[in-house]
Amino acid sequence: MNVKESLGKRIKILRNEIGISQEELADRAEIDRTYITSVECGKRNISIVNIEKIAKALGVTLSKLFDFEY
Amino acid sequence: MNVKESLGKRIKILRNEIGISQEELADRAEIDRTYITSVECGKRNISIVNIEKIAKALGVTLSKLFDFEY
Repeated sequence: MNVKESLGKRIKILRNEIGISQEELADRAEIDRTYITSVECGKRNISIVNIEKIAKALGVTLSKLFDFEY
Repeated sequence: MNVKESLGKRIKILRNEIGISQEELADRAEIDRTYITSVECGKRNISIVNIEKIAKALGVTLSKLFDFEY
């Protein structure tokens, strides 16, 4: 699994932990829902600005977001 | 300070801790030296693939790289 896939999986896990849909996450992060879908599937080389938006929308720090094996 | 600036500052701190130049970091990460310079200055919306390259070159996990206030 590459880092894009690991991060996508991690985002999905954290999103499920707080029980929100991709659509709700997209709304909170002000990012398109289809973009969230492709990030979770590990298909996007997401940038730091969007990573931060997603971390905030999930209510976690960047360090916590990246707390996974890869 | 925005997240691009915070991350750039953090990379510079970690690079100085291990006592290597921007050029040495660039060589280790296989990224152009001028790109490293602009990342450290907070001018780049760096993507996850390049963030991972820099973390590996610095010898830290992504979680440790992002262990800063922002």
